Amino acid sequence: MKLIQSRDNPFFKDIVKLAGSARQRAKAGQTLLDGTHLLSAYLDAGKQPLHILLNSVALKDDEVEALLKRAVGVPMTQLDDKLFAELTELKTPTGLLALVEIPQPLPADSRFALLLEDIQDPGNLGSMLRSAAAAGCDAVYLSKGCADAWSPRVLRAAMGGHFALSIYESADLISVAATLPGTVFAASLNGDAGLYDCDLEGDIAFAIGNEGAGLSQALQAAASRRFTIPMPGKVESLNAAAAAAVCLFEAVRQRR
Amino acid sequence: MKLIQSRDNPFFKDIVKLAGSARQRAKAGQTLLDGTHLLSAYLDAGKQPLHILLNSVALKDDEVEALLKRAVGVPMTQLDDKLFAELTELKTPTGLLALVEIPQPLPADSRFALLLEDIQDPGNLGSMLRSAAAAGCDAVYLSKGCADAWSPRVLRAAMGGHFALSIYESADLISVAATLPGTVFAASLNGDAGLYDCDLEGDIAFAIGNEGAGLSQALQAAASRRFTIPMPGKVESLNAAAAAAVCLFEAVRQRR
Repeated sequence: MKLIQSRDNPFFKDIVKLAGSARQRAKAGQTLLDGTHLLSAYLDAGKQPLHILLNSVALKDDEVEALLKRAVGVPMTQLDDKLFAELTELKTPTGLLALVEIPQPLPADSRFALLLEDIQDPGNLGSMLRSAAAAGCDAVYLSKGCADAWSPRVLRAAMGGHFALSIYESADLISVAATLPGTVFAASLNGDAGLYDCDLEGDIAFAIGNEGAGLSQALQAAASRRFTIPMPGKVESLNAAAAAAVCLFEAVRQRR
Repeated sequence: MKLIQSRDNPFFKDIVKLAGSARQRAKAGQTLLDGTHLLSAYLDAGKQPLHILLNSVALKDDEVEALLKRAVGVPMTQLDDKLFAELTELKTPTGLLALVEIPQPLPADSRFALLLEDIQDPGNLGSMLRSAAAAGCDAVYLSKGCADAWSPRVLRAAMGGHFALSIYESADLISVAATLPGTVFAASLNGDAGLYDCDLEGDIAFAIGNEGAGLSQALQAAASRRFTIPMPGKVESLNAAAAAAVCLFEAVRQRR
């Protein structure tokens, strides 16, 4: 296996750029999966990475060894441990990074979608993608103001949810709302209906807004219905990712 | 108004300790609320802070001025802007910090409680407290392994949820589960029942486990029932805070 020891190695320099820059990821159409869990989920989805990077610890790890057997014919390179450490944000890295292509979303004919407007916190965005994948959504549309869906932090928080979804970035949510086949439900603090009074059994999409500002008036107007999550307690709003989970799983309940 | 300009000021040194140390907060029984939103929620709950700290920007702010009129007789001190900046983690601080007593939880006779085992991420813990307060829970019990509930990050993420709840820290969840009046429902990936088949209308508590490990076997055994959130998609678990929100709001739905 090839070993890279110099920070000046051109391949290493490219990888550093990819790890740190949303722009570079979009330009290259590639990102990095950090750790065995994400690579395992990626392989489970029937995909193969472009390249696997390892440190000296991973090379001696049984779990890594078993995983690598599933990555047939994928080029592998060892990075000097110090160079590897520059690429990971994990506190206890598994010593494995997979370079992968960012999947192109499938043509849009969603039956159960999530529209996210300006979700800025990577942890929230990742949690929402994870919830959407668990609930059986097929597509997630992200406005331009959302965090980069393919950043290390969002990938980590979504725990593989990315690979079960078609993810449309920089989407014009108002035209998406106009063209989706089903009913678009917009979460609002003063909607016309309670969430539990909405019929969620057909083709649907939920629109969830920014952590502080909520959904824009324009997107609320473009939606078919505006609803509110009933909150009997003394606090009148939820974290955006918590709100998304409540909505998605009320649909799961109705669609059983 | 008094102005503190020296880092050696004993009061400022105490406040720095309080901002940075869970141990110091527990010892003093005090914490800091960062920003106007948290102070407003605290005042709404009928409480008054011990002291208010301001920077030069806040002193000229109309929102702050209106808020301060509600803090009757509370001592106020201006901090030099550089000293103030050392106490806040906010990217756009409002320039106001309130020193408050950590409320003592009320005697335990909960009708709708949340038991949290070893929730380590402050953002998750804050989101859970916010969801619990919005759902109308009266009590939240935290195991020793949870993040400090009164840390700046958890307070920020909970958006005032703390002040609508009795929060029991370092709780022995197994004896709590044994003594609570109602049914204790434990979230598990392989429970005996689906969430939507559980009767959540009486006195209940939900137990939610650690982000990676889930609920301990011991706490699952101590619970009255073990249930699973149905997940029709290709991802088989949720973020812990998302799972808590789904459970709490299924109870809200059933208890309407």
